[in-house]
Amino acid sequence: MATIRDVAKLAGVSVATVSRAMNESGYVSKDAREKIEQAIAELDFSPNEVARSLYQKKSKLVGLLLPDISNPFFPLIAKGVEDNMNQKGYQVILGNVQEDAVKGTDYLRVFSQNNVSGVLSAVASDSKGLFNKPLVVLDRVDSEAEYAVFSDDLLGGELAAEAIIKGKPTNIVVVAGPENVTRSRDRLLSVEYTLKKANYTYDILQASSFQFQSAEETAEELFIKFPEVDSVIAPSDTHAIAILQAANRRGLKIPEEFQIVGYDDIPISNLVFPRLSTIHQPAYQIGWDGAELLFNLMNEQPVSKNKIKLPVFLQERDTLRK
Amino acid sequence: MATIRDVAKLAGVSVATVSRAMNESGYVSKDAREKIEQAIAELDFSPNEVARSLYQKKSKLVGLLLPDISNPFFPLIAKGVEDNMNQKGYQVILGNVQEDAVKGTDYLRVFSQNNVSGVLSAVASDSKGLFNKPLVVLDRVDSEAEYAVFSDDLLGGELAAEAIIKGKPTNIVVVAGPENVTRSRDRLLSVEYTLKKANYTYDILQASSFQFQSAEETAEELFIKFPEVDSVIAPSDTHAIAILQAANRRGLKIPEEFQIVGYDDIPISNLVFPRLSTIHQPAYQIGWDGAELLFNLMNEQPVSKNKIKLPVFLQERDTLRK
Repeated sequence: MATIRDVAKLAGVSVATVSRAMNESGYVSKDAREKIEQAIAELDFSPNEVARSLYQKKSKLVGLLLPDISNPFFPLIAKGVEDNMNQKGYQVILGNVQEDAVKGTDYLRVFSQNNVSGVLSAVASDSKGLFNKPLVVLDRVDSEAEYAVFSDDLLGGELAAEAIIKGKPTNIVVVAGPENVTRSRDRLLSVEYTLKKANYTYDILQASSFQFQSAEETAEELFIKFPEVDSVIAPSDTHAIAILQAANRRGLKIPEEFQIVGYDDIPISNLVFPRLSTIHQPAYQIGWDGAELLFNLMNEQPVSKNKIKLPVFLQERDTLRK
Repeated sequence: MATIRDVAKLAGVSVATVSRAMNESGYVSKDAREKIEQAIAELDFSPNEVARSLYQKKSKLVGLLLPDISNPFFPLIAKGVEDNMNQKGYQVILGNVQEDAVKGTDYLRVFSQNNVSGVLSAVASDSKGLFNKPLVVLDRVDSEAEYAVFSDDLLGGELAAEAIIKGKPTNIVVVAGPENVTRSRDRLLSVEYTLKKANYTYDILQASSFQFQSAEETAEELFIKFPEVDSVIAPSDTHAIAILQAANRRGLKIPEEFQIVGYDDIPISNLVFPRLSTIHQPAYQIGWDGAELLFNLMNEQPVSKNKIKLPVFLQERDTLRK
């Protein structure tokens, strides 16, 4: 039968390191840990007991609730959360709610049962009475959230409208984001205010959701309802990319005959043609700062701000007239 | 102080239903459960005890390991898994490994500690000795996996090569997927075999990863190294979209002067211009069938096949010559 010495030899580390790894009594590099675990597996070294001792390292966990991971904006937030939390020795488990409020509540229960130390949530769900650990809301802020990190929607709407105005628009269509998302309403408010203040008129087209299918439908509807449109303010990059395609199919010269500004700055917006000008949201930073805030709450550290509002900026590329 | 009758009244259900919800002793619809929980919260009805009894419904959990949720292919797999598992009364918690094998091992430990009944994994990680519950590998099959669901890479490579051959190519470049991904190697093998069999020569350009940054770099490199290229077989839609942009920027007429076929059929490939012709992988089905297989394993049901290979097909759109 294999001994701890055999494990150390095969893993290329000292016996002390194996012992530390097994008892979690000191520092062991990830690399060494990997090798030790491999050696343990290969040698079939008292697997149960070793497994048990390795597992004594109770993972430190936080939960992350996301509305829809197929919306490319949310994986960016997740990466910010994970990079920060991993650095602090926490694992992040994800719940993908698929825009279903009941599932949001179910996940809070799951997280609660599984000893997460805290939750980050980008889902508008009622957590009252269901979860008694620190909770930080990301992106989708509503008035009930006590701790939240989000970006500045009023500024974003203003920047989008100003960017379009700069290109001397003649027929503006504002595509409004889903009505059930608070942040969409704030952006729309700011877009309308900025356009009106500059004496522009505009039409509004309502998008039903942030999903791909909806973006395609909205793009077709736009050119049927408003054939004269020469400027569009889109509620997301996905919508903007679908509208760009519809404009390209109609042979419109971009940005000379047709200009558009997106929202989010998802990675693909830099890969499409023409490259999409858009309002950059600091998605990664939202995740990172949310993790920081949650960590302080979990460790009962003082928190300088309950609600963190991050700035956005116009990422100029090739779809706006100068 | 509120009573169970008050809760029932406010929730608009019978006392018996509240009782069933609290003791998990029979069927309660999701809708009713929601209303009861809301009523409990509103009335502040012995919250601790109620919470405890509600929580007695230990959630049934499975874990899902994904290599990188910012790669749009994997959220599709996740949706297939979640839709199937939710239907069966299971919740799915996600681990996003960010292409880091050590994190894969860490997540298996987390899942193990948190009473998941089984794991679905699209990550190439060594699970030996770390996890003693049913495990089904998705998408990234290697020879060690006992249970796996994946799509047919040899067929995919063949279809991609045939689609390009149909367009009478003069200068073919095959962009090879990351070398460390088994499936990329199989596709490349099949592409090369099919091209050679038809007496075509071609150049190979190696992509370093499936991430966005890499796709952009590869696209630029392609036209610098092979300025005469008129046909490209891409290893993913993300690469194909980046290459389309580079071709558009050079003023190439698509597909007349430049044709390309992608791989995956991620949702955005239908939104870009021109719409991307690509090999459709049944990502949702991979997730769904994987969940089905795992469910049977967890419940010790007979399994007709350990390894399920799903077919792919050419999704024709606008980037291939006829």
